[in-house]
Amino acid sequence: MLIVADENIPLLDSFFGDIGEIRRVPGRTMSAEDVRDADVLLVRSVTRVGAELLEGSRVRFVGTSTIGTDHIDQDWLKDRGIAFSAAPGCNANSVAEYVLSVLLLHAERQGLDDWTNLSVGIVGVGNVGKKVAHKLERLGFDVHLCDPPRSEDPGDQDAERFESLSDVLKCDVVSLHTPLTRDARHATWHMIGSAELAGLNASQLLISAGRGEVIDCTALSERLDQAGAPVVALDVWEPEPAIEPELLTKVWLATPHIAGYSLEGKVQGTEIVYQALSRFLGLPVRKKSGQFLPEPALNKVSFTSSADEGDALRVALLSCYDPRRDDARMRAAIKGNAKERAEAFDLLRRDYPVRRECSSLKVQLKGTSKSLQDSFRTIGFKLKI
Amino acid sequence: MLIVADENIPLLDSFFGDIGEIRRVPGRTMSAEDVRDADVLLVRSVTRVGAELLEGSRVRFVGTSTIGTDHIDQDWLKDRGIAFSAAPGCNANSVAEYVLSVLLLHAERQGLDDWTNLSVGIVGVGNVGKKVAHKLERLGFDVHLCDPPRSEDPGDQDAERFESLSDVLKCDVVSLHTPLTRDARHATWHMIGSAELAGLNASQLLISAGRGEVIDCTALSERLDQAGAPVVALDVWEPEPAIEPELLTKVWLATPHIAGYSLEGKVQGTEIVYQALSRFLGLPVRKKSGQFLPEPALNKVSFTSSADEGDALRVALLSCYDPRRDDARMRAAIKGNAKERAEAFDLLRRDYPVRRECSSLKVQLKGTSKSLQDSFRTIGFKLKI
Ligand SMILES: NC(=O)c1ccc[n+]([C@@H]2O[C@H](COP(=O)([O-])OP(=O)(O)OC[C@H]3O[C@@H](n4cnc5c(N)ncnc54)[C@H](O)[C@@H]3O)[C@@H](O)[C@H]2O)c1
Ligand SMILES: NC(=O)c1ccc[n+]([C@@H]2O[C@H](COP(=O)([O-])OP(=O)(O)OC[C@H]3O[C@@H](n4cnc5c(N)ncnc54)[C@H](O)[C@@H]3O)[C@@H](O)[C@H]2O)c1
Repeated sequence: MLIVADENIPLLDSFFGDIGEIRRVPGRTMSAEDVRDADVLLVRSVTRVGAELLEGSRVRFVGTSTIGTDHIDQDWLKDRGIAFSAAPGCNANSVAEYVLSVLLLHAERQGLDDWTNLSVGIVGVGNVGKKVAHKLERLGFDVHLCDPPRSEDPGDQDAERFESLSDVLKCDVVSLHTPLTRDARHATWHMIGSAELAGLNASQLLISAGRGEVIDCTALSERLDQAGAPVVALDVWEPEPAIEPELLTKVWLATPHIAGYSLEGKVQGTEIVYQALSRFLGLPVRKKSGQFLPEPALNKVSFTSSADEGDALRVALLSCYDPRRDDARMRAAIKGNAKERAEAFDLLRRDYPVRRECSSLKVQLKGTSKSLQDSFRTIGFKLKI
Repeated sequence: MLIVADENIPLLDSFFGDIGEIRRVPGRTMSAEDVRDADVLLVRSVTRVGAELLEGSRVRFVGTSTIGTDHIDQDWLKDRGIAFSAAPGCNANSVAEYVLSVLLLHAERQGLDDWTNLSVGIVGVGNVGKKVAHKLERLGFDVHLCDPPRSEDPGDQDAERFESLSDVLKCDVVSLHTPLTRDARHATWHMIGSAELAGLNASQLLISAGRGEVIDCTALSERLDQAGAPVVALDVWEPEPAIEPELLTKVWLATPHIAGYSLEGKVQGTEIVYQALSRFLGLPVRKKSGQFLPEPALNKVSFTSSADEGDALRVALLSCYDPRRDDARMRAAIKGNAKERAEAFDLLRRDYPVRRECSSLKVQLKGTSKSLQDSFRTIGFKLKI
């Protein structure tokens, strides 16, 4: 069996080496020629998959190791009876860790001793939003959820909990995790426009890590020039990749659409597709991404009983991921005309340094409180007591 | 023997408990009544020591656990034959660690992969400046020194090395570590004024951690409104403690005169006075501050062979001391009228959290390069290989 795969999918050999022969191809330039004799096609979001690529090939299974499916013509695949699988939720934990780090830094800037005193509104409670909400609730934050599509689903287990967008916009922190939709009943395009932005004040933090166009970024730029503007952390932008340099200077924390870019997240994308392909082929699912992850650069931090709860969490979390570093890289890189800025943005993402999730870090706690241990576990660290 | 001491001097019992009886007094309100029957007086910089306090007492030795001596009428003590000792250099290493952290963050913001590519000019090469220069040179930075008083001393071992202020101001980073002098030949008051500031450009960093008035802060505030202004990190201010809120918003990194506030620095102040008193009394010097330092909150970080040199140093250094945290605390605290701002500034210093030096952190390096090990040692970490 021949597997044609984007060369940038991590751990291809580890997961697929004993299923078939692997042919590695650059994702951006993948052609019909490359895939003609393939049985299985594995892509990332940079390859458009449809008639043009697959007509005349013998491909029976297409997998994308990403959560997005915009690049896949699913109707066409269905018509031809070609199986398809994406990797929904694979990087949700990475985004949740990004949100936690951002919250920590924001609390610090606000002079808050206890970050859990922040109320957090989550807009869009799917794979990512749920993960964020779960961690924050277990840490003791006051969490409010907004997801109109889910709230209209009578079978949804959380249906009772959902609040309106305007209610959730009153929280100390508002974190956006919806997809971009234009024609749906609760379309998210420019969902946060000048009216919503006018209602936010200087003590509030707005985080955008879903899709850039969910915020009207022209309105945002104007709002940020006015008195009482909220603090803003943008991981996603309108437009991408040619970021507006003016908006960049006005936001507090700027990152190049990398909230989900942990190594664990990327590798889980491969794992999910491996599972789907194995099921499709009737093969046992024996491998787990954990067995293939390389040793992390930092593998252990040890705290003593004199560690203050807040300090310890802070040091451990920021040692794993400090978004200010991505912010610094981005501000240093984005310059020049639109074309140069777009290239710089893409390069920041392409050459993103290896980032490990908290699960890669062993935390040793000696004589610390039960509640501190619970917090570390909730965040995802490996605890040694 | 009765020892009257400022209650805020750390480890009084540990160092002086077996030398005499200790009477603890609040430093700010210490009166002649409090010290009348004392043999030894130990103060910090908040107590004025001279005729008013000591006339009629039997004090034979005065020690201040600080590097400054402005609060001591040394002539009067000399006239009376009262021995005196300060603690010069006790917190020089703390300031050097502050400078290293600032350099690291600056290099990151500049998009520099290797921070040692920065040239650093050090103005004022005494206890602090020497410590900074030594570490930076061993790390491989291009270091330039300016110290006119020392360069005029023919016996000075470094006399050849010193450069003019205008030459040193061309470095990528200029770090000020002079005392404040007004009448001396090379007076430092407003040494960095509008002319000097006009010569600095946007790619340069100016660090001020000596005394606030060495920079003309009105001129600085004006310069920071102009195009091509340098990046500025201020630990010391003009005026203190009623910081100008406008200047605060214009500087990159703002800290409340705490560069020297590590616990190790404070405890070494006590140790140095203990040594002087022991010598004065003809007692053996047996105690070292190391034996009394409490366990640090964070006591170990372990890196693996996949650790990139820059990343590992970054995580270790910032885990020990990240000045952005003090910056956040300061910006959150300084508000209101001059009186409120002054109180806030003093409180930030009085209630400064326990900060430990790099020497308190064990760093485990596995299979890393010799050069990385040297860098960790130079910075001051305890290495476990
Ligand atoms: N920044 C990053 O690196 C990164 C990483 C992962 C995901 N994402 C993006 O985050 C978004 C969410 O990802 P996901 O995996 O959780 O998707 P998902 O489909 O699992 O969840 C999206 C949720 O948003 C809800 N929603 C839709 N319209 C809404 C509206 N108008 N108001 C409130 N909620 C609404 C949906 O009902 C759903 O529950 C996607 O756009 C994805 O591309 C970004
Ligand atoms: N920010 C802090 O927390 C902190 C901590 C420690 C020290 N300090 C301050 O840092 C300064 C230096 O402390 P130190 O212990 O190194 O003092 P020091 O006396 O040991 O050294 C000062 C050096 O500055 C030199 N100098 C004097 N005039 C100069 C000029 N015009 N140009 C260049 N150099 C000149 C002197 O020759 C001397 O070598 C002091 O003002 C001290 O109060 C601040």
